[in-house]
Amino acid sequence: MREIYAEVITIGDEILYGQITDTNTQWLGAELSLLGIKTIRKSSVGDRYGEIETILQEASQRAQLVILTGGLGPTNDDITKKVLSDFLGKPLVLNNDALTDVSYFFASRGRELSDVNKQQAYIPLDARVLRNQYGTAPGMWYEHQQTVFISLPGVPYEMKGIMKDHGLPALKKHFKTPFIQHQIIRTAGVGESVLAEQITDWEAALPAFISLAYLPSYGGVKLRLTGINEDQTLLQTSIKQQTEQLLPLLGDKYFYATEDINLEVHIGNLLKAAGKTLSLAESCSGGYAQHLITSVPGSSVYFKGGIVSYSNDIKEQELGVSKSLLEQKGAVNLEVAEAMAKGILHKYKTSYSIAITGIAGPEGGSAEKPVGFVCMAFASDSGELFSKTFQFGKERDTNIKVSAAVAMNLLRLGIEGKLS
Amino acid sequence: MREIYAEVITIGDEILYGQITDTNTQWLGAELSLLGIKTIRKSSVGDRYGEIETILQEASQRAQLVILTGGLGPTNDDITKKVLSDFLGKPLVLNNDALTDVSYFFASRGRELSDVNKQQAYIPLDARVLRNQYGTAPGMWYEHQQTVFISLPGVPYEMKGIMKDHGLPALKKHFKTPFIQHQIIRTAGVGESVLAEQITDWEAALPAFISLAYLPSYGGVKLRLTGINEDQTLLQTSIKQQTEQLLPLLGDKYFYATEDINLEVHIGNLLKAAGKTLSLAESCSGGYAQHLITSVPGSSVYFKGGIVSYSNDIKEQELGVSKSLLEQKGAVNLEVAEAMAKGILHKYKTSYSIAITGIAGPEGGSAEKPVGFVCMAFASDSGELFSKTFQFGKERDTNIKVSAAVAMNLLRLGIEGKLS
Repeated sequence: MREIYAEVITIGDEILYGQITDTNTQWLGAELSLLGIKTIRKSSVGDRYGEIETILQEASQRAQLVILTGGLGPTNDDITKKVLSDFLGKPLVLNNDALTDVSYFFASRGRELSDVNKQQAYIPLDARVLRNQYGTAPGMWYEHQQTVFISLPGVPYEMKGIMKDHGLPALKKHFKTPFIQHQIIRTAGVGESVLAEQITDWEAALPAFISLAYLPSYGGVKLRLTGINEDQTLLQTSIKQQTEQLLPLLGDKYFYATEDINLEVHIGNLLKAAGKTLSLAESCSGGYAQHLITSVPGSSVYFKGGIVSYSNDIKEQELGVSKSLLEQKGAVNLEVAEAMAKGILHKYKTSYSIAITGIAGPEGGSAEKPVGFVCMAFASDSGELFSKTFQFGKERDTNIKVSAAVAMNLLRLGIEGKLS
Repeated sequence: MREIYAEVITIGDEILYGQITDTNTQWLGAELSLLGIKTIRKSSVGDRYGEIETILQEASQRAQLVILTGGLGPTNDDITKKVLSDFLGKPLVLNNDALTDVSYFFASRGRELSDVNKQQAYIPLDARVLRNQYGTAPGMWYEHQQTVFISLPGVPYEMKGIMKDHGLPALKKHFKTPFIQHQIIRTAGVGESVLAEQITDWEAALPAFISLAYLPSYGGVKLRLTGINEDQTLLQTSIKQQTEQLLPLLGDKYFYATEDINLEVHIGNLLKAAGKTLSLAESCSGGYAQHLITSVPGSSVYFKGGIVSYSNDIKEQELGVSKSLLEQKGAVNLEVAEAMAKGILHKYKTSYSIAITGIAGPEGGSAEKPVGFVCMAFASDSGELFSKTFQFGKERDTNIKVSAAVAMNLLRLGIEGKLS
């Protein structure tokens, strides 16, 4: 297979000076990689004619695909189009599709199309417009001496929208890239290194055209199999076989989905399917676990609510944790976690509950219970009660987020009947 | 003043292919900018000799400062040092300070120093080591034909640590950059454009050596005055004067702090100073407002707790919202928000409370109350009750975060006695 090289260029002083975060180039690099196109350089330059012209010349010598983002706005700062027009030797002409799109964009918002905004519908002669449903600046595709130039607006959701709708399919067609297939395997409750050890023989025996990526986050490690081959049938069969071989190695405690869904969505699916409900009682996680649960659209069907019991008063009055227990053993221990889980389950009359109590830090730690020490409990209306202690790190924000993520996995295991 | 140009180069395939997020270049661009050094290009290249060599040659033609990050690990992939050594014509030699640091790093973790790790203490002859307290790869400073080359490890906290400890002070000294002073002014409850209009005359009259940046986020717009001058006294006096002129223009509803603290921290300071307490009742924000409050270290002093009342049952049973009100007018209106705020205030016996109820989306909207429609209320134990409706956007995650951020400002105004 011939390798296709790409360069990605972002234009704008605000990126150079660190005023905004560039998320475009990471996304583009990953998407191109999924098409089998290799990004060999990324560059950011300022909003100046000479800088853009130079990088265009350099990049077109090295790559068969040059993607530019930014500098397409209606203001004078935004000169990408002017430089590109001169570089390609093609004057800017009014494009009717682009004019339709920008007119529609303003009309749908009850705003008038100004002359300045109409300028946005001009693109270099012979360029193909990549239509933009998300904003006012059209994308553009131009083939010039063996190199494809794509120019996109810098606003991330416009850029991504245009690429998904038009740019990526056109690239796939133009470069006749081989077939690509991905298979996601979601795991939780296991670290990258343990997982890697567990599947090392399987990984070593993968065919050369299938690669494995470990994508870790607070919520667990996502495995991604990527196959690239010119024989689509072989590709599909192989990915399927490899996945079937992999799943038993993972075991059903770690593995939870072969679609790319996070634990909160998976939990929601389980609860909806079974017609069950949920409540939460949080202390150190401070509402973050409930935020994860309610970040899922439609979660009001199964999530009735919960309590953040930051003070001992609230643990006692609202969750029925015994005063003597709090006085004798403090707020962070398995008994308190269990009492909180039972308290919220009964009070909110739900099928399941989770409770989290711990020391987020930076203050409040002791030799016996250092910062990062967290107790959790799972309870169900059929009488199950499971609790466990964890030792996380020293950093407050991380402890909050890790506690919530680990609670999601405990909840998942509880619902799936896999706690022990 | 002579302008100093910088280029920042990141090395590593994982950045090109979008496998990791590059946070280094944004941080470096911002820090250099604060020193008065202008970043003119940022580039990412792969872990290949030729690519690194080419970009080094190019960058050294254009800039007086070239910063490289990444490619300093102990593995064979990491070849930055080799390329740099050849490019500078200086063989790699063992540096004793670097050896001390890497030895200490391993010893403090009870691990043995391998030969591979000892390699990390080699730097080009005549280069100055920028010592690394945070990991095993030393930073490096080399002056070559009018250009300063700095090479740093790619791990963000190591890179930032080395630059703060050694790199930035050395740059300040080497380039004799002028004095720089910043003044942060935090605002909330006002958009960038309204703010800009309100202070347009003041902004236009700023002396040439003081610039203004608008840094918007969900929580409000942060203003940053940056002054650059060779006369430190003039600089300090001018920044002080400009700030004094600015504050009255902002008005005391929008302005809340001249230190760089977010609303949650500011609220915590107010509550601690006054010995007051807080509770929250959330519906559509799903725990995120409580997460913001509890993200502040020490928040357990003033935050007693709160309820996420996702179902109407919980609003009724736990917060005392009347059943007939919920049945007749639904869960999203000012009366429900007020009842929730009063309910949690009395139940949790706090000085203040905030309640949030709304339609986060994507489902649940109507013509009268579309997605993004949110009602909030503030209550105090001295009998104050204030409520307000808001119309946010269509996107669930944004609605959750914006609701929580706006609630923080409502709470701030309530505590400061500025609601009306």
